[in-house]
Amino acid sequence: MITLASDFGTPYPAAMKGVVLQRTDARLVDVAHDFPRQDVRTAAFWLREVLPYFPPATHLVVVDPGVGTDRAAVVVRAGDHALVGPDNGVLLPAARRLAAPDADRLETYVIDERAVGPVEPTGPDPAADASARRPTQSNTFHGRDVFAPAAAAVHETDTDALGSLEWLESTAMDVDLELPAPTVEEQRAAGEVLVVDGFGNAITNVPGSYLDGRERVLVNGDLVPVGETFAAVPVGERLATVGSHGYVELDVNRGRGDEAFGLEPGDGVVLESAAEPAD
Amino acid sequence: MITLASDFGTPYPAAMKGVVLQRTDARLVDVAHDFPRQDVRTAAFWLREVLPYFPPATHLVVVDPGVGTDRAAVVVRAGDHALVGPDNGVLLPAARRLAAPDADRLETYVIDERAVGPVEPTGPDPAADASARRPTQSNTFHGRDVFAPAAAAVHETDTDALGSLEWLESTAMDVDLELPAPTVEEQRAAGEVLVVDGFGNAITNVPGSYLDGRERVLVNGDLVPVGETFAAVPVGERLATVGSHGYVELDVNRGRGDEAFGLEPGDGVVLESAAEPAD
Amino acid sequence: MITLASDFGTPYPAAMKGVVLQRTDARLVDVAHDFPRQDVRTAAFWLREVLPYFPPATHLVVVDPGVGTDRAAVVVRAGDHALVGPDNGVLLPAARRLAAPDADRLETYVIDERAVGPVEPTGPDPAADASARRPTQSNTFHGRDVFAPAAAAVHETDTDALGSLEWLESTAMDVDLELPAPTVEEQRAAGEVLVVDGFGNAITNVPGSYLDGRERVLVNGDLVPVGETFAAVPVGERLATVGSHGYVELDVNRGRGDEAFGLEPGDGVVLESAAEPAD
Repeated sequence: MITLASDFGTPYPAAMKGVVLQRTDARLVDVAHDFPRQDVRTAAFWLREVLPYFPPATHLVVVDPGVGTDRAAVVVRAGDHALVGPDNGVLLPAARRLAAPDADRLETYVIDERAVGPVEPTGPDPAADASARRPTQSNTFHGRDVFAPAAAAVHETDTDALGSLEWLESTAMDVDLELPAPTVEEQRAAGEVLVVDGFGNAITNVPGSYLDGRERVLVNGDLVPVGETFAAVPVGERLATVGSHGYVELDVNRGRGDEAFGLEPGDGVVLESAAEPAD
Repeated sequence: MITLASDFGTPYPAAMKGVVLQRTDARLVDVAHDFPRQDVRTAAFWLREVLPYFPPATHLVVVDPGVGTDRAAVVVRAGDHALVGPDNGVLLPAARRLAAPDADRLETYVIDERAVGPVEPTGPDPAADASARRPTQSNTFHGRDVFAPAAAAVHETDTDALGSLEWLESTAMDVDLELPAPTVEEQRAAGEVLVVDGFGNAITNVPGSYLDGRERVLVNGDLVPVGETFAAVPVGERLATVGSHGYVELDVNRGRGDEAFGLEPGDGVVLESAAEPAD
Repeated sequence: MITLASDFGTPYPAAMKGVVLQRTDARLVDVAHDFPRQDVRTAAFWLREVLPYFPPATHLVVVDPGVGTDRAAVVVRAGDHALVGPDNGVLLPAARRLAAPDADRLETYVIDERAVGPVEPTGPDPAADASARRPTQSNTFHGRDVFAPAAAAVHETDTDALGSLEWLESTAMDVDLELPAPTVEEQRAAGEVLVVDGFGNAITNVPGSYLDGRERVLVNGDLVPVGETFAAVPVGERLATVGSHGYVELDVNRGRGDEAFGLEPGDGVVLESAAEPAD
């Protein structure tokens, strides 16, 4: 099984799929191709939350603002899973979770970009003329020309034998990425909005356990009810709840929490105890 | 085969797919994940129109504004098909059509939400801390935690043997949903816009047969040509036609009918005979 | 393998998939369903760029502003691939590339629309009443009623034996479509914007070789750096590069080239040598 995730929209992911299916008959599953453009942190968050629900698989991830630069293309073995993508941190939060509890099940290999292909489409290149020799790989679409053939080959290889692939070399990741950690005390938690989902729910990095036993909470100074479900408050009203990823989420029942709270990804969120109901 | 339909956007459906694929190797087919948010009626309409084109399958449907409340999670056996989703009416129009002509091929089972899982992602929960015990099921994402494992199990079970699944109990649906019926007379039909599709076509609930033999029709008082195809009128002009679902549709050739007619879902539509061409 | 491409959005493609899966267990791969509405040229461009990356397959293409008129429905055999769609030119640029180098591997067959089906959904038609007889095929959704059953049958047939299908008759295409060609001289290239992708990159029809050896270029009179990668210029700045399809592309690093250059599909683009850096 190969999952695919990118910020490509359409139809670029289809070209990746064609390349993969030239090489393997793996099942393909889309994670998302509408991640915010070139937003490595948001993609890293979602991959960490979603990929652990899959059975062992190869995960092809292309959110790659540095495509064509000297950032490495890598394969990460994470437990029984493998991740293929750019060395810009996007793979790491998911890989660390998938590899746990054995840190030695997290291994990184750099891809020799000139050796993994080449990708050969059918028919003549419409953009070519007699005087031109195009490179065998584009500088702007490594998803198709590097990562897709790599993912197909990784899928065909046992995760314990990745070191035997001649176009892979064991390495260490250049770029780390840790999602920001909150400060949580008994009465007060200071964190930030990690992402806003498509419903407008503002997902913070404060563990949901902060809300345990609370019926209301101050959110950046505003008193807000705590609910177990969206429907705990009337339609259109705000609440704090524990989202499906386990974090405190700032929502509106059948509305957009980001707009009602005035919050965007990266904005600070301070949660404080509200001992007595305000008026 | 398992089809998936929701109002989730991305990447939430991928988490459902991962859970399903942990349990079965069924073929997965997306119906849509961009149904209007929490709009049960629109989803019910589309499912009734689209699911009958599939071979016997399990249909996983999550448009669920009451997630986490006491609304039941159900499995509906409808002829050779099975539907899995919330008991809020969204499944019923499709189920009734799929079960016909034998009403006794429509059976409903309530899901024991605590017994169908549990869903266990790989790796430690990043949002958990030592002092917290999270529930095994979220309150806000039953698509992943309840409906997906249920759909996988239903797929693995013969539709005649659903009663043997120990986490299912035969029941009756709590919530019915009938799409509104029009009043159709020979000269006049009064109905409403059921949905607007992505092209802007305003799909009414008036049967297409009302247009039989007519070359023009009054739509809320405006004279409009009747055409068999969009191209029956010049680009940019309005027409009434019979859509692919068999209902009268109010369209613009290469434009948006909803805007040109000033109609939204739920708006009333009166069609009247236009015996003589107006000027 | 059957690929699917359309301008349908959702959920219409799911109905096509259901029809196909009633008839075959082919793997289905989406190319895109958000092509610009009824924009034959843009779809033709993308299909020519993407389909050659697939292994031999049947490609179901429905961008069909003339649906229901007398435009023909066709199957094109193009080398080891087959394309199914309307005779409006949308298939031709891809077909010519897939068939090369043997022109005799490009064959066209017209579909007998009354013979290829019929498509029979499960259950009674909700829009039908006793007095009405609906046609077995809609006039507005040939993707479901004509092209999908045709694609399923083509998939099940050897490409060398398409002539044996009784609902296919050998023909010639009615409508040709050539993407516009640029005028390229050593110092000056005059072309146009073919399409704008989802990132806002303005993709021209000028071969990338025009940029060989240049460090800057005049784009409609404005001096712009030439870069091998988006990251060759600071974030937010314009550049000309060679895109993954081999053409000159007008981009902004982490921004939208179409907006920064003021260009839309069809707009003229003149590239000229810039011997000395301007001020």
